[in-house]
Amino acid sequence: MALSEFELIDRYFLHQETNRSDVVLGVGDDAALVRVPMDHDLVLTMDSLVAGIHFLSTWPAEDIAHKALAVNLSDLAAMGAEPAWATLSLVLPQIDENWIEGFCQAFYHLAKQFNVQLIGGDLSRGPTLTITLELHGFIPTGQAITRSGAQIGDLIYVTGALGESGFALHIEKHLSLFSDTVYRSVAHRLRRPMPRLAEGRVLRGLANSMIDISDGLAADLGHILEKSGVGATVIEEKIPIASPLKQHLSYDQAWNLALFHGEDYELCFTLPLKYQERVETLFTELQTDLHLIGHIDSQQGLRCQMRNQQVMNLEPKGYQHF
Amino acid sequence: MALSEFELIDRYFLHQETNRSDVVLGVGDDAALVRVPMDHDLVLTMDSLVAGIHFLSTWPAEDIAHKALAVNLSDLAAMGAEPAWATLSLVLPQIDENWIEGFCQAFYHLAKQFNVQLIGGDLSRGPTLTITLELHGFIPTGQAITRSGAQIGDLIYVTGALGESGFALHIEKHLSLFSDTVYRSVAHRLRRPMPRLAEGRVLRGLANSMIDISDGLAADLGHILEKSGVGATVIEEKIPIASPLKQHLSYDQAWNLALFHGEDYELCFTLPLKYQERVETLFTELQTDLHLIGHIDSQQGLRCQMRNQQVMNLEPKGYQHF
Repeated sequence: MALSEFELIDRYFLHQETNRSDVVLGVGDDAALVRVPMDHDLVLTMDSLVAGIHFLSTWPAEDIAHKALAVNLSDLAAMGAEPAWATLSLVLPQIDENWIEGFCQAFYHLAKQFNVQLIGGDLSRGPTLTITLELHGFIPTGQAITRSGAQIGDLIYVTGALGESGFALHIEKHLSLFSDTVYRSVAHRLRRPMPRLAEGRVLRGLANSMIDISDGLAADLGHILEKSGVGATVIEEKIPIASPLKQHLSYDQAWNLALFHGEDYELCFTLPLKYQERVETLFTELQTDLHLIGHIDSQQGLRCQMRNQQVMNLEPKGYQHF
Repeated sequence: MALSEFELIDRYFLHQETNRSDVVLGVGDDAALVRVPMDHDLVLTMDSLVAGIHFLSTWPAEDIAHKALAVNLSDLAAMGAEPAWATLSLVLPQIDENWIEGFCQAFYHLAKQFNVQLIGGDLSRGPTLTITLELHGFIPTGQAITRSGAQIGDLIYVTGALGESGFALHIEKHLSLFSDTVYRSVAHRLRRPMPRLAEGRVLRGLANSMIDISDGLAADLGHILEKSGVGATVIEEKIPIASPLKQHLSYDQAWNLALFHGEDYELCFTLPLKYQERVETLFTELQTDLHLIGHIDSQQGLRCQMRNQQVMNLEPKGYQHF
């Protein structure tokens, strides 16, 4: 006989490796109770992943769990916040204990790396596998890095490399065009993205604005520009297009995936010139690639200075997950 | 052309009537930022409603929105907490602006009554309409009323009347058996439950344990007994079976719906004898019906003293929403 909701919760959701001292009451009452440290703001983010929309139903439970937590962690990283507590709603088409066990293992594994404790949620039956995760963290009062603080003259930086996640999705949709080796070289960026929490944290008090790249660099930098009421110019040859794209795709394809696809979960931030050296040193210490791709200017809109010295307008369009 | 996620958020989710001063950053950044008052714990609850499982897809958007918020408010009521901020994930099979507008209107209407502000969330496309809501509130440190505090000798109380929600669902499933008039007399309890927040709040420092009745009185009182390591005896003739059930159903049917169905969102709590008079006076002032249905005892399990003076064991079973 299938286990009831309560039995499943007892078996898989009561016991975790993370036990935070600020959790007063975790899974198992009407609500969870936690303590936010003094002089800190609470930071909240929620994302849903739906089978067939955000992932293929052939993905293993482990990848789905990792991604659900990682994309929410990335939102906290983009504020410079410290993650702490998660709540999880699972809508399951059937009770497959192997699936739930795999999901929990991968979830707890990533959660432990960032000291996140699962403190509550909901299990429901439903025709479509849907995972909704809310992640709660905190940050010293007034230190959150929002999208709206970019200033004219700020330098624009991007971490890591762009486009691999989009390339992996492209291969999943057109499987025969690329070898398994190529797919495996980029699939982890689509299925197991690693959120940039340490990078976000060191930028407190330094970056004027920040966002994580979920919709694509053009769209996400566009959000910063819109919220900050400024414009920007980026330099074509500084955009960090990931190597596998350069190797296996035409330049146009690679460019499009790097700028307009998203799901890279890298950070894009703007920085006053005076902090350039300090931040570049901090990122060297973190061993995280950092790319200065342009600057904020007063002319509205997003422009790209191309290799041929022409300036092209970039549409702030992105991948429509919706 | 259908609106994009961003356009929908701009149109329906940025503007609300509730504007709390403790919201530093609401909808529209990577994450929301709020301030929990000093010397308070943060209280969190999350529930999902799935079309075809928790509501019929023929329900109007207004009922779905009300219910999604009400069931979460009820969880905070059961802790004695003060609601504050909501995050909402909507998975929509198609973009129907009328539907979204109706949903938002009813959501904001109920939210305003309890001073709740929507501060973030997620819009996704997906084959099954799914609403996941997280509600955040707070309570002075150490004053939350949990399921685990019941003491031997405590009186057991239930607010309001039981079974109407179950009766309404029963009619929805077997429509021809009852007239529209009968259905309308109970449907609001299924579709538009009113959470008992004021009642929960006045019990701070008085009730030893509390739960809201979502799975059925027997199951939910069972949760208190299990978490508190005690037993209980209730009195058959004190169980507040709602009048429409007595009027239109056999005694056995009415009894079963009142005890084992749930979704009534009444409160069940246990109280030291010394607070009996004080609490009964408080509830008279609130004009909320209150029923003393039994007491906590040392013998494990849940018993019912029947009209014929026999004592019957009650299974702590409830409605399986899962």
